[in-house]
Amino acid sequence: MMDQTYVEDLSGMIGEDVVLKGWLYNSRSSGKLVFLQLRDGTGIVQCVVFKGNVDDDTFEQAKSLGQESSLIVRGKVKEDARSPIGVEIDVTGVDIVQAAADYPITPKEHGTEFLMDHRHLWIRSKKQHAVLRVRHTVIKATRDYFDDNGFILADTPIFTPAACEGTTTLFEVDYFEDNKAYLTQSGQLYNEATAAAFGKSYAFGPTFRAEKSKTRRHLTEFWMVEPEVAYAHLEDMMDLGEGLILAIVSRVLEERKEELETLERDVSKLESIASPFPRIHYDEAVNMLRKGHEDGELENLFEWGGDFGAPDETYLSQQFGKPVFVHHFPAAIKAFYFERDRERPELALGVDLLAPEGYGEIIGGGERATDIEFLEKQIEEHGLPKESFEWYLDLRRFGSVPHAGFGMGIERCTAWMCGIEHIRETIPFPRMLYRLRP
Amino acid sequence: MMDQTYVEDLSGMIGEDVVLKGWLYNSRSSGKLVFLQLRDGTGIVQCVVFKGNVDDDTFEQAKSLGQESSLIVRGKVKEDARSPIGVEIDVTGVDIVQAAADYPITPKEHGTEFLMDHRHLWIRSKKQHAVLRVRHTVIKATRDYFDDNGFILADTPIFTPAACEGTTTLFEVDYFEDNKAYLTQSGQLYNEATAAAFGKSYAFGPTFRAEKSKTRRHLTEFWMVEPEVAYAHLEDMMDLGEGLILAIVSRVLEERKEELETLERDVSKLESIASPFPRIHYDEAVNMLRKGHEDGELENLFEWGGDFGAPDETYLSQQFGKPVFVHHFPAAIKAFYFERDRERPELALGVDLLAPEGYGEIIGGGERATDIEFLEKQIEEHGLPKESFEWYLDLRRFGSVPHAGFGMGIERCTAWMCGIEHIRETIPFPRMLYRLRP
Repeated sequence: MMDQTYVEDLSGMIGEDVVLKGWLYNSRSSGKLVFLQLRDGTGIVQCVVFKGNVDDDTFEQAKSLGQESSLIVRGKVKEDARSPIGVEIDVTGVDIVQAAADYPITPKEHGTEFLMDHRHLWIRSKKQHAVLRVRHTVIKATRDYFDDNGFILADTPIFTPAACEGTTTLFEVDYFEDNKAYLTQSGQLYNEATAAAFGKSYAFGPTFRAEKSKTRRHLTEFWMVEPEVAYAHLEDMMDLGEGLILAIVSRVLEERKEELETLERDVSKLESIASPFPRIHYDEAVNMLRKGHEDGELENLFEWGGDFGAPDETYLSQQFGKPVFVHHFPAAIKAFYFERDRERPELALGVDLLAPEGYGEIIGGGERATDIEFLEKQIEEHGLPKESFEWYLDLRRFGSVPHAGFGMGIERCTAWMCGIEHIRETIPFPRMLYRLRP
Repeated sequence: MMDQTYVEDLSGMIGEDVVLKGWLYNSRSSGKLVFLQLRDGTGIVQCVVFKGNVDDDTFEQAKSLGQESSLIVRGKVKEDARSPIGVEIDVTGVDIVQAAADYPITPKEHGTEFLMDHRHLWIRSKKQHAVLRVRHTVIKATRDYFDDNGFILADTPIFTPAACEGTTTLFEVDYFEDNKAYLTQSGQLYNEATAAAFGKSYAFGPTFRAEKSKTRRHLTEFWMVEPEVAYAHLEDMMDLGEGLILAIVSRVLEERKEELETLERDVSKLESIASPFPRIHYDEAVNMLRKGHEDGELENLFEWGGDFGAPDETYLSQQFGKPVFVHHFPAAIKAFYFERDRERPELALGVDLLAPEGYGEIIGGGERATDIEFLEKQIEEHGLPKESFEWYLDLRRFGSVPHAGFGMGIERCTAWMCGIEHIRETIPFPRMLYRLRP
């Protein structure tokens, strides 16, 4: 690794002799010159081969080299104002590691299925490459945010003995000796235990939903960060969520400028995201949606008590041009563990954060119920097997405290940052209803 | 969250009035004084309640409060030389949030099964709490190491269509419409694709092994970091692995001093870990093991060609007192994808890192084969379904390059840092052959 210079470091090395190792992204020739676009995973640089500077064999080989051939290029770094990275390479030698032919992904249009079948190669393409580098930064910013704010990472189990939020969307696994395990849909119940141990904790891992859904927002396997805080309330989660989003947005703008350019992202949309995010009551959201219908901007008349559909979420966030929190949802559409509003017990202390530009809900959470009798009744009313929740009820038997948390989906957040439509491009190897390969 | 002071911040706040929110770890009373040990997840502080400073009801309640009751304490921070954190709290008020009774985990001895059944509470205990905070730091140091060295995090899929290293230890999942998916045992094959896209990549997530093994080193669900580097060779992986271990050790020593003290860890053992780590050839390791047998230190006579057992690993690492790399294993005991030694093709370019103090293999990896014909033959000889590996073979069709990587198990590394015997304590909710709860 030591005898190699990476493209991302070239701009500070003008005049130096370097060895680059990578793959041929593109090439063209013109008389005594061959222009090789070399990519090495950190960037792309133009390498200029002049016929007189290398032996004839090398020159001829370089001229006819196929896309994604692997090669080692030696040469001098030269300032070049026309280059996006400010430099090009004056080549003194080329070693072809492997000459590739008939690379399946060409500049022409390919169908999505074809590209998804070739995902292992597609991720080398400029746009996919940029999206996944943004994903890296979203995750890094997220982890740093929690680590720097005193949270302890406590991984929750993937194998769970029972459903956390209903059984219809669970993946079942054959465990040992005819036992069944289920893949986690959320680490939340376990986070409530770790928050009682560490004060502030978070889980960050893959979660699974066996939804027979083919929308652009669904994956069967996706990554989620879930913080949980003891002695925290609903308002605290809005503070925490707002801080998280601001940390992600500023880090992405700072570190992934080039990638956002490649993606033709309108960065002004991200630059304008600033504190405070509006916080509206569900009742207020309902009024806005009904007005939207009156004004002919929404097809359906929204009824109080319902859950938002994608057009509702888009409409609401459009009213503000920045992320908006909606809180105090009807308890009937929320999970069993939500704390209730004291004055209006039909409302759950839940909160969603709706992203702008139609990216929908990216944070969902709220305050958890503290009272054991209330929870026992809830578990019964939701038809859940009480014995599976005895450990969870222990958290109310032994030092029950107000506490709250939320979950944020990494793929949805990355799609929003990138301004891309389908979340299947925001994870290296997406898994969907009809997609288990490669 | 704002109106709360955390115990970890108290030492700098002498003389200030604070509000602490937490749980009762322990208490005792003596005449007109009650001493409450309050834990809040970041530490434990002694809160002294003087009968005259609070009303009588509060004093009586404080006196009889059960372990793990939740409470809010108001008071002044007072210097106290006898306290491990240098301060105690002169209490002016106590609010009992929930009075707990009969907390199941008491200072008396409990059996392991009992503690594991109460894992959701056990993690509040001093020792478990310390282990999991060390785990947090191991993970943070690991991620920072790769992020700071130009690696891109590229999560590999949990659902895989086929086995990577044999089928006997795979967990099977019902996917949609009678399809089967298998839970990943390693992200490596996918990492090879992402390394070709990003130059340097890593995956970090849970991996699964359906091993019917009950040893102290096995979990069915464990976390692994797996870096992969294009244009890298076997030696580079030893450099990279050594750097990683040094980064983890120094970060743990720096940030988790108190936790290591709680765990009664002999830190001199960690402090002595320094570069360079010995790098020995498998042949040399075999000679050492045979000598160990001659000297009566190893029961069995090790035969060239075999894989190391736990006593062998322990013996080898004891010869050096620091982590030791063993490289060039017999190809017959390694997976199909290893590159071979050119001079001695019966050897695979694999490398393991053996931790000191009997913690065994914590890193395993090596250089991957680049030649498609060799790999096709390997896949056939290993009886693997070739059609499942076509995408993997594409990586050799289109820009094949030398590349290498490794995997490091987070739980084994954490157990080593903590000096604890069983890895089941190094993960918040362990999953084992007979353990799927809580």
